[in-house]
Amino acid sequence: MLQIEEKIYRQLELILGKEGCITESSRIQPYTEEQRGLYKGSTELVVLPKTTNQVSEIVKICNSEQISIVPIGGNTGLCGGAVSNKYNKEIILSMEKMNKIRELDSDNFTITAESGCILKNIQTTAKNKNLLFPLSLASEGSCQIGGNLSTNAGGINVIRYGSARDLVLGLEVVLSDGKIWNGLRSLHKDNMGYSIKNFFLGSEGTLGIITAAVLKLFPEPKKLETIFCALESLDHITDFIHYIKLNASENIAALELLPRIGIEFCKKHFDNISSPLAGDYEWYLLIEFSSSSPNIKLLNDSEKLINKALQKGLIADAVIAKNIKQSKHLWYIRELFSEAQKREGASIKHDVSVPTSKLPEFINLSMKAIKNSFPAARPCPFGHVGDGNIHFNISQPINEDRNKFLESSKEISNIIHEITIKLGGSVSAEHGIGLLKVEELENYRDLVEVDLMRRIKTTLDPKNIMNPGKVIKKI
Amino acid sequence: MLQIEEKIYRQLELILGKEGCITESSRIQPYTEEQRGLYKGSTELVVLPKTTNQVSEIVKICNSEQISIVPIGGNTGLCGGAVSNKYNKEIILSMEKMNKIRELDSDNFTITAESGCILKNIQTTAKNKNLLFPLSLASEGSCQIGGNLSTNAGGINVIRYGSARDLVLGLEVVLSDGKIWNGLRSLHKDNMGYSIKNFFLGSEGTLGIITAAVLKLFPEPKKLETIFCALESLDHITDFIHYIKLNASENIAALELLPRIGIEFCKKHFDNISSPLAGDYEWYLLIEFSSSSPNIKLLNDSEKLINKALQKGLIADAVIAKNIKQSKHLWYIRELFSEAQKREGASIKHDVSVPTSKLPEFINLSMKAIKNSFPAARPCPFGHVGDGNIHFNISQPINEDRNKFLESSKEISNIIHEITIKLGGSVSAEHGIGLLKVEELENYRDLVEVDLMRRIKTTLDPKNIMNPGKVIKKI
Repeated sequence: MLQIEEKIYRQLELILGKEGCITESSRIQPYTEEQRGLYKGSTELVVLPKTTNQVSEIVKICNSEQISIVPIGGNTGLCGGAVSNKYNKEIILSMEKMNKIRELDSDNFTITAESGCILKNIQTTAKNKNLLFPLSLASEGSCQIGGNLSTNAGGINVIRYGSARDLVLGLEVVLSDGKIWNGLRSLHKDNMGYSIKNFFLGSEGTLGIITAAVLKLFPEPKKLETIFCALESLDHITDFIHYIKLNASENIAALELLPRIGIEFCKKHFDNISSPLAGDYEWYLLIEFSSSSPNIKLLNDSEKLINKALQKGLIADAVIAKNIKQSKHLWYIRELFSEAQKREGASIKHDVSVPTSKLPEFINLSMKAIKNSFPAARPCPFGHVGDGNIHFNISQPINEDRNKFLESSKEISNIIHEITIKLGGSVSAEHGIGLLKVEELENYRDLVEVDLMRRIKTTLDPKNIMNPGKVIKKI
Repeated sequence: MLQIEEKIYRQLELILGKEGCITESSRIQPYTEEQRGLYKGSTELVVLPKTTNQVSEIVKICNSEQISIVPIGGNTGLCGGAVSNKYNKEIILSMEKMNKIRELDSDNFTITAESGCILKNIQTTAKNKNLLFPLSLASEGSCQIGGNLSTNAGGINVIRYGSARDLVLGLEVVLSDGKIWNGLRSLHKDNMGYSIKNFFLGSEGTLGIITAAVLKLFPEPKKLETIFCALESLDHITDFIHYIKLNASENIAALELLPRIGIEFCKKHFDNISSPLAGDYEWYLLIEFSSSSPNIKLLNDSEKLINKALQKGLIADAVIAKNIKQSKHLWYIRELFSEAQKREGASIKHDVSVPTSKLPEFINLSMKAIKNSFPAARPCPFGHVGDGNIHFNISQPINEDRNKFLESSKEISNIIHEITIKLGGSVSAEHGIGLLKVEELENYRDLVEVDLMRRIKTTLDPKNIMNPGKVIKKI
């Protein structure tokens, strides 16, 4: 039996035209398959609005008919935030046709983009004006800015430019009753009342549908230096990060941890990967410095900084990329990490953060705890340690059955998450909550905070039609 | 007749002790006098909690007795956000005794401070560890961090480090029912659900009382260069700001506009003020570059940058401070601006922002409009133009009666605000709403946005006891 009545289809078709409503299951399929394969969604209808007014009309109908809406961008999220369930009378609203750059104000360092714009297109549009839109993720060629903003996406450059939330000056949002909030202001400073944009940023479509945003742009860096260092020991990581921040704060563009095991995975599964440093060390850091100044002697400054770190015994060895080719090779290793782990078998993934002062303690405790309970499992913690964010992934034991290892997912995640929380950390540093971490949010955040979230959800979406079940459970 | 019953006093005294309850009118007076003299508050009781639990207990009593609470910090706000009214059965809650620095985690670049900490004390505590807390305001010697966060304070360094909101990682808040939300996390990245801290930051105590915060610290700059330039003409301001941002983005620490008339006021009312440049120009900019790197040749880079701006005809003349004494003199002129205007007679003040691309248009239109309607009035627009924020103050005509000029306040403000809004601007860039701009918020923000604010207020403070009447009117 169809969940959504014929009459509703007709109303939506009237608004969107035939081409704006997808009902064939073969064409629906790509919208219901989630890339990690953790969830299989289903729906009877995908709608493709072209304008904010159309989104508003769709929401008005859904509101009056109690049909819930799952907004979807590039479908690259990692927590199931765009998974739909037709048995809940749920339609998918894809933003892909709302993909116009509405304005680029070079003098104001802002770009106004619709939610369906591919992140890469926004980056390129900015670059053509010698400007930078700094949000940068593995999925940037297919993810959409609306998804990035709804999930408050992170990535490589957060240490310099902040997360998606920090890159937004203004928003346009369709609320759960279909009203349009036009908050598309291009102001670098604006202090008039509550920060409404911050309600919607990072709320994963559960409070409203972001349709457009005014984003901050920055000058394109004129100088870049890429450095690969081997840590003297893991215990030096906090001191070294502190040293780098203290002496080069505003020039740090990225600060990533790479463990030896991850580099070995890359060498095993990909051709032409060479170890950047001769010796065998357990822990490496990939650092990028950048500057917008054409005059600064960034290479000279970086060399001095790294030499002093060597003298201080914070690092054991280091190499500065001599040219763009070498820099690209260093970044290529980092970029292969996820795929190399995939080829190495099953991997149980965590996206956690701790204060940077707690990094060695967190990694040591977690490594030890996994070794105790799963001696053959292979931890591969890597990622954005400059922000205290670690992707603490654990590869399956060699020759063990993939599915047998994955059966331990919950047990392993509990181990990692308990240590994270004990050290004052977060069990979702940058990927959000979606469906995947709803339980963790309820378990690890105090009751007062969960209750506040629930009250906000009830206030802004009283009928619970905006991406229900994501982020926060209904009471 | 007393508004607050004896029984309530006794309950509060039991929690706070005699020394925690002020009832003598002479001792109450400083809490009810607002520095600009725009409002005269009154109350029968000022309470002085020493702990978060005491704040919680006070709020519980007030909640059950329908007594409203006006939180107060250093009482330096510019919009009347801490003004009380005893006829509304309203008590003042001063945070001054909650003034402990709870923790400084140098490795994590964070400091945890209670709301009653004087801003200057936080700056000094950080400085003693070679770290910087960058929020910097004229009132930093007496304002309290709780007030800064509640009003999302701005200031000189916003262009580099953001407003108060951007400097907060975690918060502790007492809600309107007296429950304590412990969100004192020290995480640089945390993406678990709605951004609760952003509900309270900038909401001026109308949604809850901030009792403590985890604040971001930065390395103390190791190099500073202060530059004073004369613009070729006002029309060059956008191009010059664009040029500076494009070529020195991460090193800009401040970028302030100073009009000739303001410098003349300073010379007239203070000794030892000399013009930094020989020629007579209408518009000047004060720029500060800074760097955390000990190696960077900041002076050399700044000279090259400024020389090129001269060649391009963006600026007519410039001087780079040769030493700290010269730098201090340049900043001294800037810091005297408010006091010099005060001594020049009545001044009608505006705190507006526009996109930086609209700065010349905004200033030209506003100057012209004031000249048309009030030909003898003397506009003195100055301030944080790097963020598009202008303090468009207007000094009274020479020899006119002070009060006669102030009678035109509303008319003059309407002129400035209408131009601001027409150019996509904000009528409160950094000072907040308080009592002063409640009408403007209702007039200039669209109904959907005002309605959203009102719903949030009703949800988080259903009895309307948290600083009622500020920011958003009750329905």
